[in-house]
Amino acid sequence: MDRPTLYIANKNYSSWSFRPWMALTSAGVDFEEILIPFDDAGGNPNIKAISPSGRVPVLQHGGLKIWESLAIIEYAAELYPDAGLWPRDRAERALARSVSMEMLSGFRALRNACPMNIRRPRGGITLPDGVDADVSRIETIWRNLLQKSGGPFLFGAFSGVDAMFAPVVNRFDIYDLVSRKETLAYMETMKAHPAWRKWEEAARAEPWVVAEDEV
Amino acid sequence: MDRPTLYIANKNYSSWSFRPWMALTSAGVDFEEILIPFDDAGGNPNIKAISPSGRVPVLQHGGLKIWESLAIIEYAAELYPDAGLWPRDRAERALARSVSMEMLSGFRALRNACPMNIRRPRGGITLPDGVDADVSRIETIWRNLLQKSGGPFLFGAFSGVDAMFAPVVNRFDIYDLVSRKETLAYMETMKAHPAWRKWEEAARAEPWVVAEDEV
Repeated sequence: MDRPTLYIANKNYSSWSFRPWMALTSAGVDFEEILIPFDDAGGNPNIKAISPSGRVPVLQHGGLKIWESLAIIEYAAELYPDAGLWPRDRAERALARSVSMEMLSGFRALRNACPMNIRRPRGGITLPDGVDADVSRIETIWRNLLQKSGGPFLFGAFSGVDAMFAPVVNRFDIYDLVSRKETLAYMETMKAHPAWRKWEEAARAEPWVVAEDEV
Repeated sequence: MDRPTLYIANKNYSSWSFRPWMALTSAGVDFEEILIPFDDAGGNPNIKAISPSGRVPVLQHGGLKIWESLAIIEYAAELYPDAGLWPRDRAERALARSVSMEMLSGFRALRNACPMNIRRPRGGITLPDGVDADVSRIETIWRNLLQKSGGPFLFGAFSGVDAMFAPVVNRFDIYDLVSRKETLAYMETMKAHPAWRKWEEAARAEPWVVAEDEV
């Protein structure tokens, strides 16, 4: 089958795009990338035209379209079982999915108040209700997993779970939301990953500004 | 290993509990069920005590705790590969996960405005912005899958995808949100499923009323 195509939006802002891009890149998957930039309102009719859900990311592989960041990671884990996107142990994998889906479905307060923004200089903002609880829960998840695995990534080696939390690493960093040294060490590990650096470099070179994501 | 225990909340209201319960029951999994009723504010300190995320459902299997409805379904699909919780074909399975995760992560307008409420008599409400778009997108998902599979369930036989959408079937029904005959036929198929009927009977017999979910 042809190599897959990953449709994404702006590397500076599109948190959902970042997750599968980082997973596929870290897994060494050979994929084509098509970037459809957001318009000023954070949408784009061209995204609606290619995506069943109207949102990116979408992975196209032959005639198949897969959407939702975690569904793309699951598909890649099946296609490339040796890439380490999921833990090999069934119980570990169940835990990996629990935290990945908690990330996929939750933490709305944090995500609404603190958009991902790779280029943004670090600086705090006034936080609405609920953000502190989200930050605290995510720090607990990371701490438990890092203690269990020994790190440096959440399940030891880099996995799809780290990819799912990558946008939160940026949020914690740029809005200066955390101070525990174990949390900061994990964030530094993530930011030093070659896939992160490649994404970041491209984000910094993008010409587009989405006003509503500049907080 | 011991048989698993599924922690759930009120069958009348707990949409997240309904999904894995229906999946495990339809798959013939032998599990124990522990129901922790919501308090008046829709929470319960006893749920926080047993659940890593502070929410139900949680599946406990030996020393392992799995949370998030879809993570429990994934685990059951791995433990019981012959139960048909996921399609056997990889491309179909990728599609199943895409729509299940779109349900897991989205449709906030519908879910906030129209709580699941098994006992509620059918009757419309004034709908806030965004609900119509959610209903329309879900009808499109169902129509596409039913046309492709031939029905009567979304992937032909009952699967984890139907379980993920079960709470929406209740919402569409009780708030009178849909009128397309293919949508209504799928909803009738779901409501006639033995697992649905068993859950419904138990919901009707529950003594608890959660005021904020009575819309």
